[in-house]
Amino acid sequence: MDQVALDAYLADCRHLALEEIRAIIPRSDRCHSVLYDLMMEYPLRSSKGLRPALCIASCRAMGGSMEMVLRSAAVLELYHNAFLLHDDVEDGSESRRHLPTLHQTHGEPIAVNVGDAMLAIALQPLLDNMRWMGLGKALRILEAVSRMSRESTEGQALELDWIRNRQWHLSETDYVRMVYKKTSWYSFITPVCVGGIVAGASEAQLVQLRKFAALLGIAFQAQDDVLNLTEGAGGYGKEIAGDLWEGKHTLIVMHMMRSASEWEREQARRILSKARPSTSGRRGNGAAASVDALLADLETRGELSPAGRKLLESAMREDGSVKTEDDIQHLMNMIQRYGSIEDAQSVARRYAARAATVLERMDWLYPSVHRDFLEGLVDFVVGRDW
Amino acid sequence: MDQVALDAYLADCRHLALEEIRAIIPRSDRCHSVLYDLMMEYPLRSSKGLRPALCIASCRAMGGSMEMVLRSAAVLELYHNAFLLHDDVEDGSESRRHLPTLHQTHGEPIAVNVGDAMLAIALQPLLDNMRWMGLGKALRILEAVSRMSRESTEGQALELDWIRNRQWHLSETDYVRMVYKKTSWYSFITPVCVGGIVAGASEAQLVQLRKFAALLGIAFQAQDDVLNLTEGAGGYGKEIAGDLWEGKHTLIVMHMMRSASEWEREQARRILSKARPSTSGRRGNGAAASVDALLADLETRGELSPAGRKLLESAMREDGSVKTEDDIQHLMNMIQRYGSIEDAQSVARRYAARAATVLERMDWLYPSVHRDFLEGLVDFVVGRDW
Repeated sequence: MDQVALDAYLADCRHLALEEIRAIIPRSDRCHSVLYDLMMEYPLRSSKGLRPALCIASCRAMGGSMEMVLRSAAVLELYHNAFLLHDDVEDGSESRRHLPTLHQTHGEPIAVNVGDAMLAIALQPLLDNMRWMGLGKALRILEAVSRMSRESTEGQALELDWIRNRQWHLSETDYVRMVYKKTSWYSFITPVCVGGIVAGASEAQLVQLRKFAALLGIAFQAQDDVLNLTEGAGGYGKEIAGDLWEGKHTLIVMHMMRSASEWEREQARRILSKARPSTSGRRGNGAAASVDALLADLETRGELSPAGRKLLESAMREDGSVKTEDDIQHLMNMIQRYGSIEDAQSVARRYAARAATVLERMDWLYPSVHRDFLEGLVDFVVGRDW
Repeated sequence: MDQVALDAYLADCRHLALEEIRAIIPRSDRCHSVLYDLMMEYPLRSSKGLRPALCIASCRAMGGSMEMVLRSAAVLELYHNAFLLHDDVEDGSESRRHLPTLHQTHGEPIAVNVGDAMLAIALQPLLDNMRWMGLGKALRILEAVSRMSRESTEGQALELDWIRNRQWHLSETDYVRMVYKKTSWYSFITPVCVGGIVAGASEAQLVQLRKFAALLGIAFQAQDDVLNLTEGAGGYGKEIAGDLWEGKHTLIVMHMMRSASEWEREQARRILSKARPSTSGRRGNGAAASVDALLADLETRGELSPAGRKLLESAMREDGSVKTEDDIQHLMNMIQRYGSIEDAQSVARRYAARAATVLERMDWLYPSVHRDFLEGLVDFVVGRDW
């Protein structure tokens, strides 16, 4: 399947899932607040719609029907968007899908609550499944989603612990474990398994689906790490090198840290541990601006020495503990010196190849556009630019 | 039932629920992180254990068994603690149950994720119910919990919208709607209804239980608002007047705002809209302290005038947009002038009396220590000091 056909398949699935999401989210006048309007913010922004497509493709490639799987596919997209809301808060991300993150526009309290509310409304449609899909399948889907939530939060906890402990000297195995939990489970494993369950997959078939999706997920995330450093913000929807500004534990940074000398590593660790400069202004831009004005005023009136003003300005820039453009460039130079981007690309290719092998052996997936989509996705990882 | 017996009943239920929670939370070595240790933080702090007790009491007063209800009661306590974690982040609270909030000790990212993880692990025990409680009851419990999560986030959204829009001129009806959703549903309605469902309550009986619990919940919250302003931090576990520092929409503040003159209202609104002073230092205590030291140093060296230092210090206190002790005292004076505490006390008594009337009519609750507990709880609202 070529990129045009792949994009069309994704777009179709995304469109259908969005309609379902609209049906799942209550009317906004229900609760006298903007809660339910805000829920549509992230889903409506341009996105791949990868998760519903994976769910639909695996179901239909096993002979299941669109009608049977669609609601559950949409629920997974809802979960995805709820996780994004909380991740953006937790990572201090500034943009998501070409627009400011919700906590930037509405504040962290509202962003956290909207995420919680999305998780809250996602449960009922899965309970409704029981009434028409049969108890067995509906229960297996609920258990898959329950496991997904657990794995995702465990993966997030791994990375948050690393950040808190300023832990950077990590192996590829550490990375794979974190990504398997944090990304593969909710973006790949659960979608294909829920699709399989709806289509009546056996336990043995689910094991194969899970293996395929786990490998594909790791390949995708490794490639995502690459794109974050190599793509302009235009095509990608996040900030350029946003991962470095955020100090994320990407495959690339980990490789760089393992390759660096003790001294270089210490230097890089110091940069990565710095906060990102706040454009949103947790402290409030207004306050900062008025302090700046006051400093200028005091200097003019001779109540503050020019040297004193300089010292104060730099001290107030949070003790220089904020990353600068130079810092990011320094990291980029190290990354290039050690070929860390190429390393990540080769990891992505390796996992994609393993995923392809597992997929090939699944002869119980019917030859169809749906199977083609799954195969196309694997091929596409190494060349994807979205 | 007197206070000693009431406390003993609560303590017993809390103890049993805690043992269940320990069994539900996975071993911490499962995921190479501190995630599961942190989950026990809030549940282990001294607390009333009100929700498990309500759940157990309503179940047993209808003839249900402890064995049947205990796991679900514990799950509700888990949900409660997860909500607390996120609420504390959203409200910027500094202490919870006599100790610093989790986001104060571990940062907001970890606190949000631990809350999400608690919600994630809370689902499986409710699915397990199906295997031994029967599909019907287990499904009704799941639907009750699903509704609970929705109502709670809607209630939270109401208050967060008020905060964002600096909306203060609100009626008692607005307050009751918010508290009904934000507090009654998860702290009162769902516990007694889940207890009822386990014991085999009819739809009509559930309606009565729901009504009783909704009224009791509003009475409790109104009384909670009173205690926040009248109790020392010792007995209460939160900060003294923490609600005023946080700028919460309590019954008392709403009454004060309705009673005040246009001019007073504007003044109070200005105070309430100010941020609370940050002791945790989103900006980092280190940075702030070093700037303070630098200011002192510059003044000593004659590079900064004493007046200039004062101006700068107050400007850096976020443009004076942070509440002061004087501000809080000003609000307390207004509250006393308009008898707003007495108003809240009378609202609490009124709702407690209505709850008592509904409870009296529930002749299908067997005379027992469990029924006594529910009755004692109603009597206790107006006099409670915990």
